[in-house]
Amino acid sequence: MDYELFPLGDVRLSTGQTLRDATLAYKTYGTLNEDRSNAIVYPTWYSGQHYDNEWLIGEGMALDPAKYFIIVPNMLGNGLSSSPSNTPPPHNGPRFPDVTFYDQVRQQHRLVTERFGIETLELVTGWSMGAGQTYQWAVTFPDMVKRIMPFCGSSKTSEHNIVFLEGVKHAIITDAAWQDGMYEKQPVKGLRAVGRVYAGWGLSQAFYWQQLYKRDPFDFATLEDFLVGFWEGFFLAKDANNLLTMLWTWQQGDIGKTPGFDGDQVKALASIRAKAIVMPAEKDLYFPPEDEEFAVSHMPNAELRVIPGVWGHFAGGGANPADTAFIDAALKELLDS
Amino acid sequence: MDYELFPLGDVRLSTGQTLRDATLAYKTYGTLNEDRSNAIVYPTWYSGQHYDNEWLIGEGMALDPAKYFIIVPNMLGNGLSSSPSNTPPPHNGPRFPDVTFYDQVRQQHRLVTERFGIETLELVTGWSMGAGQTYQWAVTFPDMVKRIMPFCGSSKTSEHNIVFLEGVKHAIITDAAWQDGMYEKQPVKGLRAVGRVYAGWGLSQAFYWQQLYKRDPFDFATLEDFLVGFWEGFFLAKDANNLLTMLWTWQQGDIGKTPGFDGDQVKALASIRAKAIVMPAEKDLYFPPEDEEFAVSHMPNAELRVIPGVWGHFAGGGANPADTAFIDAALKELLDS
Repeated sequence: MDYELFPLGDVRLSTGQTLRDATLAYKTYGTLNEDRSNAIVYPTWYSGQHYDNEWLIGEGMALDPAKYFIIVPNMLGNGLSSSPSNTPPPHNGPRFPDVTFYDQVRQQHRLVTERFGIETLELVTGWSMGAGQTYQWAVTFPDMVKRIMPFCGSSKTSEHNIVFLEGVKHAIITDAAWQDGMYEKQPVKGLRAVGRVYAGWGLSQAFYWQQLYKRDPFDFATLEDFLVGFWEGFFLAKDANNLLTMLWTWQQGDIGKTPGFDGDQVKALASIRAKAIVMPAEKDLYFPPEDEEFAVSHMPNAELRVIPGVWGHFAGGGANPADTAFIDAALKELLDS
Repeated sequence: MDYELFPLGDVRLSTGQTLRDATLAYKTYGTLNEDRSNAIVYPTWYSGQHYDNEWLIGEGMALDPAKYFIIVPNMLGNGLSSSPSNTPPPHNGPRFPDVTFYDQVRQQHRLVTERFGIETLELVTGWSMGAGQTYQWAVTFPDMVKRIMPFCGSSKTSEHNIVFLEGVKHAIITDAAWQDGMYEKQPVKGLRAVGRVYAGWGLSQAFYWQQLYKRDPFDFATLEDFLVGFWEGFFLAKDANNLLTMLWTWQQGDIGKTPGFDGDQVKALASIRAKAIVMPAEKDLYFPPEDEEFAVSHMPNAELRVIPGVWGHFAGGGANPADTAFIDAALKELLDS
């Protein structure tokens, strides 16, 4: 096991449900300095686990473990922290309680403060749902978070994004083997169908036009082989109920729902004190740059910087060296400021 | 019955399969003049039937029945022409043969020439898969087609479009009630899932951002009500095997596969003699303007004219008056030239 566990006890969630005997799984990189002033939080994305974030951490990079103490908390629901797949009955599977971004970040805050005694964060950053958690950190703990860089994500899940996720959800639940979540074996047809539904959204039209799946790091000879080998394989490795739990979190994403903001996204954006670089990808089909332009226009200390190119949402996934270099350079600039 | 039937007899298809005792359903608008020089062909789209095309036909419009003889042939597979749903055993349901755009247009050509004795067409036009048939007409019968205006479609189905359709297809076939196409009752979960998968593709991100589903002609109070009332309702009215047959046609779309072109799309584009206005929609998520820009660059007598606005693919569906006016104006200009 290459990660640590932080026992959360019984967690009362926003919905009034209680997540009992909960656990936060996390991994740290680097060493916390004496005055606890070099910490970074870097949350995970939809179905990603801590090791999936490691492409952005390394010697000579912005997130350099020689310089910073980088904490990667696994999202509740992602299969390592408390999730439908690892919680004992009766709160397992489809009875796992609903968790909001606010709930996620409150528990991550406990890890950061109770286990490590950290009072300020140099940076919070993350991709996709990790960007949602990044915004949530900045709104919930404005005195604690000095800088944020949400990439390929949003502070409020747009209606189009909600619709896209409905397609993902129904690909799973249309499979009779899902059995309302009470399956003994994974609904593999549904998981494969999710792969095919997701394939058109995760990468841009131009990515497919240029057949970049034939090149590094994918190296597939045909489109069909890419759909099976990458996309079906990607989702077959996941638990269906975990995917549905995280999907609920994602669909509900809205920093305006943070207590004290009366559902007002703009008011919540305006409350952010952290210096921010907000980084959508040019051809991201479910987090389009326009949405983040709107967010930045309401943030007091934020810059919009669009990742150029054809990788769409996956520009932030670490598979394309040019995008990684672009993200890393912005992180360096932000951390040096 | 508001349409006519043209018996095709036994049709030998491109794949070598034979569609036996086939029928082409069609409707005409206006009167064929004495020298048979005022005919227009306006094919249907994915699951659309002739009456779904009528929004673009009318007095004072470009497609004016007082001036032109407008033939709307229903695509094979669309439920009115020979289709999985109306063909007797053994070639019904999932055993209905595969039909290409080339096959479609060859049979439409028989209708136009054998039934009406027409030798030239003033125009071929169509939306989406109707645009695919439009290109196919221009390539297969270059001496016959004087003008074309394909809108929100393509001459070759792009790989991203193929991937999008994989999501649609798997939403149907993941439903156990589909039974490999041998169902007695429609796989309604699958059809509803298709509605949810399609909802994110048919309209743009900005359409949802602006909540245009709350306005005319939709008039839904909530997003969820739009998903059920419009999108699920749309696909629940269709036959699953018909959808899969037309989807195969769409995925295989490529004018380069026309006999004589050796699979070369560019060579086929270059062979088009018709004067063309090619009209993608600005935010169409599966027929993006870039793809049509490529097509136009290889056509000898074509102009690219992008439909502006946020309606995405549905800019060509007749629901938004501004888009309809834009399309109609271009048709007038083209017909007057």
